[in-house]
Amino acid sequence: MEEILAIAVKCGVLPETMLAAVMPEPGHIVLEEQPLPVLAADEVLVKVMAVGVCGSDLHYYEHGRIGRFVVEKPIILGHECAGIIAAVGDSVTRVQLGDRVAVEPGVTCGRCTFCKQGRYNLCPDVQFLATPPMDGAFVQYMKIREDMVFAIPDQLSFEEAALNEPFSVGIHAAKRCGLQAGSTVAIMGMGPVGLMAVAAAKAYGASMIIVTDLEDLRLEAAKRMGATHTINIREEEPLARIKELTGGIGADVAWETAGNPKALQAAMYCLRRGGKLAIVGLPAQDEIALNVPFIADNELDIFGIFRYANTYPSGIEFMASGEIDTLSLITDRYPLAQTQEALERAIYNKSGSLKVIVYPNA
Amino acid sequence: MEEILAIAVKCGVLPETMLAAVMPEPGHIVLEEQPLPVLAADEVLVKVMAVGVCGSDLHYYEHGRIGRFVVEKPIILGHECAGIIAAVGDSVTRVQLGDRVAVEPGVTCGRCTFCKQGRYNLCPDVQFLATPPMDGAFVQYMKIREDMVFAIPDQLSFEEAALNEPFSVGIHAAKRCGLQAGSTVAIMGMGPVGLMAVAAAKAYGASMIIVTDLEDLRLEAAKRMGATHTINIREEEPLARIKELTGGIGADVAWETAGNPKALQAAMYCLRRGGKLAIVGLPAQDEIALNVPFIADNELDIFGIFRYANTYPSGIEFMASGEIDTLSLITDRYPLAQTQEALERAIYNKSGSLKVIVYPNA
Amino acid sequence: MEEILAIAVKCGVLPETMLAAVMPEPGHIVLEEQPLPVLAADEVLVKVMAVGVCGSDLHYYEHGRIGRFVVEKPIILGHECAGIIAAVGDSVTRVQLGDRVAVEPGVTCGRCTFCKQGRYNLCPDVQFLATPPMDGAFVQYMKIREDMVFAIPDQLSFEEAALNEPFSVGIHAAKRCGLQAGSTVAIMGMGPVGLMAVAAAKAYGASMIIVTDLEDLRLEAAKRMGATHTINIREEEPLARIKELTGGIGADVAWETAGNPKALQAAMYCLRRGGKLAIVGLPAQDEIALNVPFIADNELDIFGIFRYANTYPSGIEFMASGEIDTLSLITDRYPLAQTQEALERAIYNKSGSLKVIVYPNA
Amino acid sequence: MEEILAIAVKCGVLPETMLAAVMPEPGHIVLEEQPLPVLAADEVLVKVMAVGVCGSDLHYYEHGRIGRFVVEKPIILGHECAGIIAAVGDSVTRVQLGDRVAVEPGVTCGRCTFCKQGRYNLCPDVQFLATPPMDGAFVQYMKIREDMVFAIPDQLSFEEAALNEPFSVGIHAAKRCGLQAGSTVAIMGMGPVGLMAVAAAKAYGASMIIVTDLEDLRLEAAKRMGATHTINIREEEPLARIKELTGGIGADVAWETAGNPKALQAAMYCLRRGGKLAIVGLPAQDEIALNVPFIADNELDIFGIFRYANTYPSGIEFMASGEIDTLSLITDRYPLAQTQEALERAIYNKSGSLKVIVYPNA
Repeated sequence: MEEILAIAVKCGVLPETMLAAVMPEPGHIVLEEQPLPVLAADEVLVKVMAVGVCGSDLHYYEHGRIGRFVVEKPIILGHECAGIIAAVGDSVTRVQLGDRVAVEPGVTCGRCTFCKQGRYNLCPDVQFLATPPMDGAFVQYMKIREDMVFAIPDQLSFEEAALNEPFSVGIHAAKRCGLQAGSTVAIMGMGPVGLMAVAAAKAYGASMIIVTDLEDLRLEAAKRMGATHTINIREEEPLARIKELTGGIGADVAWETAGNPKALQAAMYCLRRGGKLAIVGLPAQDEIALNVPFIADNELDIFGIFRYANTYPSGIEFMASGEIDTLSLITDRYPLAQTQEALERAIYNKSGSLKVIVYPNA
Repeated sequence: MEEILAIAVKCGVLPETMLAAVMPEPGHIVLEEQPLPVLAADEVLVKVMAVGVCGSDLHYYEHGRIGRFVVEKPIILGHECAGIIAAVGDSVTRVQLGDRVAVEPGVTCGRCTFCKQGRYNLCPDVQFLATPPMDGAFVQYMKIREDMVFAIPDQLSFEEAALNEPFSVGIHAAKRCGLQAGSTVAIMGMGPVGLMAVAAAKAYGASMIIVTDLEDLRLEAAKRMGATHTINIREEEPLARIKELTGGIGADVAWETAGNPKALQAAMYCLRRGGKLAIVGLPAQDEIALNVPFIADNELDIFGIFRYANTYPSGIEFMASGEIDTLSLITDRYPLAQTQEALERAIYNKSGSLKVIVYPNA
Repeated sequence: MEEILAIAVKCGVLPETMLAAVMPEPGHIVLEEQPLPVLAADEVLVKVMAVGVCGSDLHYYEHGRIGRFVVEKPIILGHECAGIIAAVGDSVTRVQLGDRVAVEPGVTCGRCTFCKQGRYNLCPDVQFLATPPMDGAFVQYMKIREDMVFAIPDQLSFEEAALNEPFSVGIHAAKRCGLQAGSTVAIMGMGPVGLMAVAAAKAYGASMIIVTDLEDLRLEAAKRMGATHTINIREEEPLARIKELTGGIGADVAWETAGNPKALQAAMYCLRRGGKLAIVGLPAQDEIALNVPFIADNELDIFGIFRYANTYPSGIEFMASGEIDTLSLITDRYPLAQTQEALERAIYNKSGSLKVIVYPNA
Repeated sequence: MEEILAIAVKCGVLPETMLAAVMPEPGHIVLEEQPLPVLAADEVLVKVMAVGVCGSDLHYYEHGRIGRFVVEKPIILGHECAGIIAAVGDSVTRVQLGDRVAVEPGVTCGRCTFCKQGRYNLCPDVQFLATPPMDGAFVQYMKIREDMVFAIPDQLSFEEAALNEPFSVGIHAAKRCGLQAGSTVAIMGMGPVGLMAVAAAKAYGASMIIVTDLEDLRLEAAKRMGATHTINIREEEPLARIKELTGGIGADVAWETAGNPKALQAAMYCLRRGGKLAIVGLPAQDEIALNVPFIADNELDIFGIFRYANTYPSGIEFMASGEIDTLSLITDRYPLAQTQEALERAIYNKSGSLKVIVYPNA
């Protein structure tokens, strides 16, 4: 394998070194020249073509930690990514050189109880891109286990393939909630995850998709994703409005994606009896007061959502069907050398920006 | 109640009598003048605006029986219907005079084990329109229990509301199979039920919908409903073609809607391991040879489909969302006086005809 | 029908009048002579043989209300009941004179969305025994719609048949949680509902059933129901103990039955990742602080439990199989004339008492 | 690792060689001395204490093949096994030296679609013990990947732990059918798989378990496993008897475990409307005539069963709870040197024999 890589380098197919956007400490990104990764037999080398900037990247960039995961040494961020197979390990059979692929960023053990039960997102030994101490995708080439890449059809762009990551969160919520065609779904918060959740609700056939946010730009984007009704919570009381829109009955399903306690309460109270709530957003505070008798009396189902599992193939299939114009979410594009600007843009200019993409090989 | 109806008649709001297309014996439809039905307190009077001709109507018209249901006295056929609420019984609260409604044709007991479990389609005491001895919808006015009518929004036509009945069969198959967005579905047979099943698969987000039939007209119609690939079984071997289209893996889900033994076998063999088969069509013969080791080795799920349950509200919601152009299936339109012609058209001119609609109040 | 009843009365099969334990105002029960109920065609007359005293009876007796249900006129309490069919309405087919039956106390409409979906416990028009303004079962004879009574086999006592009501709550929680054989279940609070929930967990094959309470008497009773481990929360910290018993992993499923905020939090925190929580008990206060990031990170499922649906037949079947000695829960027995004493016993002497039964025809 | 093993051998903890019961060709078993297996870092060495003889072992012994799996070179049979951890690879963390364990015999890839979805029994790359060309458990020591062994509690014998394998098939059928407590289950065929399926139905709380077989010895054993009603099909017509026992309604669930076409048809026809059929047994012939309109009209669910997934932990938990006396199934015990006699006993003396166990280290 190493010989073949060496040949590829010699032939000019692969460079000897690559560029990586490293965060030596929070708040700072520098471009470094690094050797290409060395592949294990079951790994592939991905030439990274598009990387979405995600809220968790911003959190590590600003605060240096998310919960128990702490940035203690230089790290490469970025985990929503897609690219081209540039080299394959000796035993790789699932993909070929030149395949265009979406990368699922969490490498799971395949052997624990959770993995065996199909809930690999709960694997305690998962190695997730851009989660300390593991490096991520703001690089020109990255390696990953072969079963983590999924070939995409010609009509799917690298950006869309990268967006399959946040789309997966929405698909996972839809699956956990057993979302049925013809349902009414309320989705709170139209950040990138919320917007892709709208796309997922649409994919699952929801016929009324009511969304809330503070900003009209985001509400407009939600409409492009399939939202049928938008509520700017600066102007309207969401609970009353959702009840009105549903003829007093309430929504079948509600998803909170913003991590906002008030939005969570609204998501719960806007449900019909027997309705289903998915908690997608992580609130900053731990304890939130919830109306427990309301949960019991109305026989609600509440589902915690942690990443996703088994969503990549169907997400790609659905995106490729062309039903949803996810590309319209991309407002900002940066080369790898401007990764810091990309992160700053996503943080400080939120109102004008929806989804920021970095192109490591542009 | 009767007084109010009498007043309505006096005021010219309702006529004294109405026309009904009665089948005195199989193969023969005559127009009769009949008194308006008398409502019980929990019933509504529906002015029937559109009635779809269904395969079971044709079966009673041609053969006078379906299984244990035998036409022994004059009967009115037709059960895919929609109309306007023209009168309401004393205790009616769910709908109002003038509401435009889709009619769910099976009045269930609400008290048996099946009804209580939410599988009311299995209710042994169901009274189903146009199933002997119960009359159906080829009439100007019909009565039905108030919970069997569902208000439809302005943008939904009566024809679409009537088509919600065969659409419901597809929705029910989708629900029974747990159809997920991004799935690959193979649907065998593009008669009216098959075509509406395509619409249901589309509603549930299937991204690859492969359909089979003998006739290009129907395959073209299937494309309008959302089919992504069509197979004319006169020209191509469906099993080989489906395997090819799915990269050798097979379909996630297959539905047989034609009642054809060969199609059933193809539906089963075209599945991937762990795939799901719904049996929607009723074969003429009872016993069909199935490869049982194949079912076990591949851990297939096979689901019998009998009518539908709890599909009307979501079917209406989805149709109203305008995602699918079901009206394009309607090829033939007849007034009530030509009900016999409508049935004959549906029987004898199948290749040029897709869906035939009768308009009792045209 | 009335004639037949009159004949029955004349023949001495039925009395002319009956005794009822009426609560003219909260805190007071008086014995009244009343006429026998008159049956509708679809109703049966039940000679009431055993009635369990339930927490909701006590609540109406002490406080005169539960939430929006307020005692505004004299009412008869009691809803956990069983008896003998003493007369049947004209159209009754499901049971016969002399049948020994368990009575499911909530008469549902059978026509609303919830009823049709099999979630009839959410029916907005349910008429529930002993819920104002509807009378209950502390009477010698009561009428109820025929589909609400379920014949019981000879080996099942009336007391056990009455206990099928609280057993049903546990069965419903087990079904909502998808409880699997071999699971570990933690159940908080060993009041009558908690104790019967233990029996339900046992019925569903849970192999480790850990229970908590303040009182050893109740913990001992829980062992008789199938608890494998008991925790007296005066002596042990339940969370730490459950983690210890489960090898640090946590329980698969937890049910809170006491309506206690601390117990609810313990129930949630004691779960393994991907675990399931059922909220059975109703806390007195509305808002309870819950750790929302914990729910999301661990992908918990939380299910509100409101009464039950479709549990009577399987509950009876399971009880009749003799696997669980529910009779051992009955500590106190009273005739109808001492209904007030029965209620007082259940309220004021909780530590010595588990389940109190009233025998209206003793 | 190899050094440690060498030390263990030197210290007399492990022998230098071991005995294996090899089948050089079908119909012939010889005892061979072999070197101990060499462990990979993630493997454990199991000192095999008990191995159940399974129908598939007999099939390879008699016919040299099962479907596409053909015995082409000497093979060691046996896959229902349990033992003691005698050595561990360098990276092993899940178990320790001396742990008593049940061995799940199918080593799956953990990376394919099926593995990731939790249906690892469908993994195309599974390596299953005693399935050509992979050797099995009729040896004194065997190696296997660490995640395939499950520690068992002290009260569970090695024989019971070995029986967890056929028990798993029943548990899997119960899970696939969504078996609920209080259900009625009909199980066709009381061979070892059928008998353990009875135990599984019992574990899941089935209250009426009706079983069929030709031999009274097996029917008696079924009663010990939890069967409530037995039908000797030489004496009674099973369909009529099951209908009678269920009050004319039919069974909720039926499992065919014998691979017998008539039994399969009886299993299907004995179901109530909406009932569920699991196909566990593999018929010798491929095509079996099934009544397809019956499947559709009655909305049956039919589930193919191929081995099992995620059953080991709960199976062990349930067995350890002592509810079922599976040891009573063991009729015959042999040392490793008599493995051929064990197989012959299981084949030729079926009427007197239920379960045969081989003890490789006795």
